[in-house]
Amino acid sequence: MKVLVVGASGLIGKAVVQDLERDHEVIQASHRRSTLSVDIKDAHSVQALFESVGKVDAIIATTGNVHFGALQTLRAEDFAQGLLDKLLGQVRLTLIGQHYLNEGGSITLTTGILSDEPIRDGTNAAAVNAGLEGFVRAAALALSGRRINVVSPTVLTEALEHYANSFPGFDSVPAWKVAAAYRRSVEGIQTGRVYRVGWVRDAR
Amino acid sequence: MKVLVVGASGLIGKAVVQDLERDHEVIQASHRRSTLSVDIKDAHSVQALFESVGKVDAIIATTGNVHFGALQTLRAEDFAQGLLDKLLGQVRLTLIGQHYLNEGGSITLTTGILSDEPIRDGTNAAAVNAGLEGFVRAAALALSGRRINVVSPTVLTEALEHYANSFPGFDSVPAWKVAAAYRRSVEGIQTGRVYRVGWVRDAR
Repeated sequence: MKVLVVGASGLIGKAVVQDLERDHEVIQASHRRSTLSVDIKDAHSVQALFESVGKVDAIIATTGNVHFGALQTLRAEDFAQGLLDKLLGQVRLTLIGQHYLNEGGSITLTTGILSDEPIRDGTNAAAVNAGLEGFVRAAALALSGRRINVVSPTVLTEALEHYANSFPGFDSVPAWKVAAAYRRSVEGIQTGRVYRVGWVRDAR
Repeated sequence: MKVLVVGASGLIGKAVVQDLERDHEVIQASHRRSTLSVDIKDAHSVQALFESVGKVDAIIATTGNVHFGALQTLRAEDFAQGLLDKLLGQVRLTLIGQHYLNEGGSITLTTGILSDEPIRDGTNAAAVNAGLEGFVRAAALALSGRRINVVSPTVLTEALEHYANSFPGFDSVPAWKVAAAYRRSVEGIQTGRVYRVGWVRDAR
């Protein structure tokens, strides 16, 4: 398959590329550090990416920023940054990318454990991740002949050196294990799924 | 208690006002059709509302628009409208309102069944509602000494004359029954809850 990975230079993106390259033609894009450059906040940039890549069998997004900050001092403008970056950016990739996706192809987005297990200063991350998952559940029913899923990892083992204090007592997961969930989405038959990696959602 | 209802002129807002007025001092605000006028998309407008109302014991938001449209032709700019209106608008009410909320007070937001049960053209509604619920789960843990919940109704019986075709076979719920969930949030002790009214979420 021809697979486009947007966010290929990140911890997850690199692991996904390394895993999928064994069996697929993988095209790497990221904001600055890949063969192809793209800004998911800019429709023209995303459109240009797909025009240069052409039709693909799978689109993977492992990118997007959220805002961290204490609720007491958070401003709506700060909150909007995460909505317009990680949430709307991955939605934009989906909306434009669907027209470059071969019949039977798939889109795989990325959220994270903060949708359901809040950490300090993480209200924006919770909203962005949960919103993306809601989008995927609905889009799966509208993407005729194509599929869409989302991978939601816990904190990466490779990121613990920087983020351990934000995730006290959380299990971590190595990036290679997260990459397996993207393979499951790309090569499998499921759609509308949230693949949680390294954690289980409580009943609520 | 002194209760501020933002969105008081809507179907749900009217039912909430009617119910809570029996026992509380209820202040009504909405975009155009209430004693107090407010635009939840505008920080200055929200700030001015709270400056004129002063400290309250409960803030209820029953307002916000989302975008409906087919995924195939949806543009990211359309999608952003719903994010910046219903989602960011209710978040803005929370961020500003928290500073006008008495100790022990509560905030109650509004989502809806489309977070989990998609309907045609409803990808934006799914993302907005799910995102708000993620925000509430996280904000509940950061709002020291105060509470926040969200009410998620199925389609209102009173709205079926306009929306029945969009909700084929869905159960509906009368507005008075939805109003009871806001009373539960305002007078109860729970926080971080999603009160689903007229429907039950599937295990997933």
